[in-house]
Amino acid sequence: MQRALSVSRMTGNRSTFPDWYQAVMREADLAENSPVRGMMIIKPWGYGVWEEMQRDLDRRIKDTGHVNAYFPLFIPLSFFAKEAEHVEGFAKEMAVVTHHRLRSVDGKLEVDPDAKLEEPLIVRPTSETIIGDAFQRWIRSHRDLPLLINQWANVVRWEMRTRLFLRTSEFLWQEGHTAHATGEDARAHTMRMLEVYRAFSEETLAMPVIAGEKPENERFPGADATYSIEAMMQDGKALQAGTSHYLGQNFARAQNIRFQSAAGELEYCHTTSWGVSTRLVGGVVMTHGDDDGLRLPPAIAPRQIVIVPILRDKPEDAEVLAYGEALAKSLNAQTALGGRVRALLDTRGARSADKRWEWVRRGAPIIVEVGPRDAGAGQVTFMRRDRLRNGDKVQSQAMPRDAFIAQAPSFLETIQREMFDEAKARLDANILGGVSSFADLAEYFGPASDDEDEGVAFRGWVRAPWSRPTGAALEAVEEKLKALKLTVRNIPLEQGAVGDTCLFTGEPAVEDVLIARAY
Amino acid sequence: MQRALSVSRMTGNRSTFPDWYQAVMREADLAENSPVRGMMIIKPWGYGVWEEMQRDLDRRIKDTGHVNAYFPLFIPLSFFAKEAEHVEGFAKEMAVVTHHRLRSVDGKLEVDPDAKLEEPLIVRPTSETIIGDAFQRWIRSHRDLPLLINQWANVVRWEMRTRLFLRTSEFLWQEGHTAHATGEDARAHTMRMLEVYRAFSEETLAMPVIAGEKPENERFPGADATYSIEAMMQDGKALQAGTSHYLGQNFARAQNIRFQSAAGELEYCHTTSWGVSTRLVGGVVMTHGDDDGLRLPPAIAPRQIVIVPILRDKPEDAEVLAYGEALAKSLNAQTALGGRVRALLDTRGARSADKRWEWVRRGAPIIVEVGPRDAGAGQVTFMRRDRLRNGDKVQSQAMPRDAFIAQAPSFLETIQREMFDEAKARLDANILGGVSSFADLAEYFGPASDDEDEGVAFRGWVRAPWSRPTGAALEAVEEKLKALKLTVRNIPLEQGAVGDTCLFTGEPAVEDVLIARAY
Repeated sequence: MQRALSVSRMTGNRSTFPDWYQAVMREADLAENSPVRGMMIIKPWGYGVWEEMQRDLDRRIKDTGHVNAYFPLFIPLSFFAKEAEHVEGFAKEMAVVTHHRLRSVDGKLEVDPDAKLEEPLIVRPTSETIIGDAFQRWIRSHRDLPLLINQWANVVRWEMRTRLFLRTSEFLWQEGHTAHATGEDARAHTMRMLEVYRAFSEETLAMPVIAGEKPENERFPGADATYSIEAMMQDGKALQAGTSHYLGQNFARAQNIRFQSAAGELEYCHTTSWGVSTRLVGGVVMTHGDDDGLRLPPAIAPRQIVIVPILRDKPEDAEVLAYGEALAKSLNAQTALGGRVRALLDTRGARSADKRWEWVRRGAPIIVEVGPRDAGAGQVTFMRRDRLRNGDKVQSQAMPRDAFIAQAPSFLETIQREMFDEAKARLDANILGGVSSFADLAEYFGPASDDEDEGVAFRGWVRAPWSRPTGAALEAVEEKLKALKLTVRNIPLEQGAVGDTCLFTGEPAVEDVLIARAY
Repeated sequence: MQRALSVSRMTGNRSTFPDWYQAVMREADLAENSPVRGMMIIKPWGYGVWEEMQRDLDRRIKDTGHVNAYFPLFIPLSFFAKEAEHVEGFAKEMAVVTHHRLRSVDGKLEVDPDAKLEEPLIVRPTSETIIGDAFQRWIRSHRDLPLLINQWANVVRWEMRTRLFLRTSEFLWQEGHTAHATGEDARAHTMRMLEVYRAFSEETLAMPVIAGEKPENERFPGADATYSIEAMMQDGKALQAGTSHYLGQNFARAQNIRFQSAAGELEYCHTTSWGVSTRLVGGVVMTHGDDDGLRLPPAIAPRQIVIVPILRDKPEDAEVLAYGEALAKSLNAQTALGGRVRALLDTRGARSADKRWEWVRRGAPIIVEVGPRDAGAGQVTFMRRDRLRNGDKVQSQAMPRDAFIAQAPSFLETIQREMFDEAKARLDANILGGVSSFADLAEYFGPASDDEDEGVAFRGWVRAPWSRPTGAALEAVEEKLKALKLTVRNIPLEQGAVGDTCLFTGEPAVEDVLIARAY
């Protein structure tokens, strides 16, 4: 992020990573703040990225046997009282609907005091309670299990300090909810969905992650176990990119979700829940963006190949446009990354150079320029967005039209793979092992800034031996870390040789944990 | 709906059309009431139908140049004050968020009085005002126009008497919002989207409609013109299946949506909006359902061909399952109606007869049964759900496996076409012309029942000459019709020979209108 800027690069203030992030949001036209405090408007290009993510993940969720359904936006307040641990642990910052009518008084619109609801309704912050209530009605017998449901929905959690995509009062997500006859099956399903998230994140978002279990203090309220995938952003911070929860029988007991077993006994179900959200769009930006703006992995680029015609208000423009149109059509008939190629001829009335740079900032994976000379010679000139520059110089290459069309799928697949490899190399290179004391850990990360918007020097993650403390001992560790704005991200599923002694308790270590600053 | 029942048919009370509708909702497993008053749970099969509708309509909306985006769920109260006519005309039954936090007092959860919002937030009943506010920021020049945006979202309008899919306090929909440089362009776009809806409804839902303009008293609040497509349900009532509004410069003036013209002048935009909702699922049920439950047009059936293996807990079961699996795989490799065939082998552990009837009630277009004899002979036995019975007898036919696979796409396309033809014949046969007086009209429709749930004798629609009254004259007509629970559905775009005299005012007629009872 530290390179000198050229005029064509983003124009926003980018002295710090958060400033850079805001600049990409604006210049890649992804999202903006709305007049409603803490709620964003997802602009067409940003929403297009989300749609591609949805399409891909929805397929993975269906391939693992789930069906989609839709549950109410509002949840009666009393439902939250059912699962005591859930309500205690859950942030109480929720939007509350108290009235159902407006009235007009002297031409002024106001809330009608006569239309107060008997029971306040909560705008769903997550749907365990309302979906559990349905499960309780739907499940009768072991033959109804497993019940595998997913919902795509908006949820609201009131936030004071917001950041586009990363923390907003309303966000879009999917939430999976399943019920099983045995704890073993539910646990296996929790891990299966964690793996779906890992594969989706790495294969589709080209965003490498570490999958692991959260320490008990970071569990979802009411869960027996919470797992996450954690991705490393370009400022070194961790982003929790998805979570999968094994809820044991806790919610089933609270909500009376029971089934008759094959042996004829009434038993409580074992349930799971898991979700990812529009926060992933922020993760993609912070994983792949550069000084020129966004770079999108082809699998989630709403337009994978954008053709910018070089027009000069001259008669030969028609030929250039026809050439571009035929090219787009041929590209769109190709298949890459498991779907049709998404190519666009950008015919808008603006200067070609402006259009080219707009697509650079938006991160279109391949940008093609065709002018009269290309049309005449039957060739194309194109740039790979992921390798835009050689030093400061923009690189482009020319190629015969037919060869380009034939090779376009493999270009897109190469870009997808190389973007992953680049991010994976960064992740692997920036997980520090061998830190031998808490003091060394503190020194490595340095003092924490109180100002979230302040840029900080890049620090990766630390992999540290851990004795799996619980209760008060865990709280003490949490406090020590908190003072440095650090958290245990997770206990990686893949464990190597573990050090002897826990960095935090001095007791014998049983596993490694990942320590990082996080979003 | 009046045929004698067989044991395999739906079991619900179906003495009236509303009862029948409720029975289909339940037995086809489409939706159910939730614990939140007026809000439904869309069950997986019902949501699957909505997903297929979405996929198809989304493509049509994108093919006409629109992009999707997402705007906040909440709208500040003050925004509704901007467009006076909009707020006056719009029902004020909206959900109001007044607080943003709960608190726990003596272990009891309650609304925190300290967390009252400065300005109440309205859960969007529609998004003209919040999207208009964004347009006002986004649009600068004529080069930004037309701006063509669509949103898929949930909306809330408080309803006292609700009916699954048809009228619920929360529903899912798409809302298109566009801005144009000229009134001519905006009007043309309004008509273009009406035509998209007509084509979608007829081609995809196999639901014939009449497209036309609403009389001025039925316009969307703040619109210069409102158009609708109207479909005829099997009880003869009309269902407004989609609307398209030309908003003139009304919203643009209220929200200051301006652009600099090519001549350098600041001008107000001309805007449009248009939407269809999950209400369409109810329309499909009431268009295509029969005594056995739902019949789904293949284009929107989540599963177009369901294979039920006949298993007997015997060794040959394995062969039957393998045969069914190979059949499903071959069918899924076929293309029909513009997409991959959606076939399913139903391997659940239940009696084959129960599974077969479940798929009949759910309306799967083709239901195949394969038993040991079919597997041995390399054949299939199948039923077309749209032509399930001959008299009371269920019809099935046998066919060599390979021939069935090869012909499956054409079967599906035939079913799609014939379901449309059947509904179209009913629509055409039940629009009555030549009614010469209001008294005759009243006699045709008969007295209106006050009880919505009461069954009424089938009455079609009346096409009546109309003098296009306005103001008080129109109000008088509206009142007369209202006493009979009738409304002017629309003024069909396609006009034939128009009668001489308006049925309502006695003045010279200028066009025909459609009169009907409606949902």
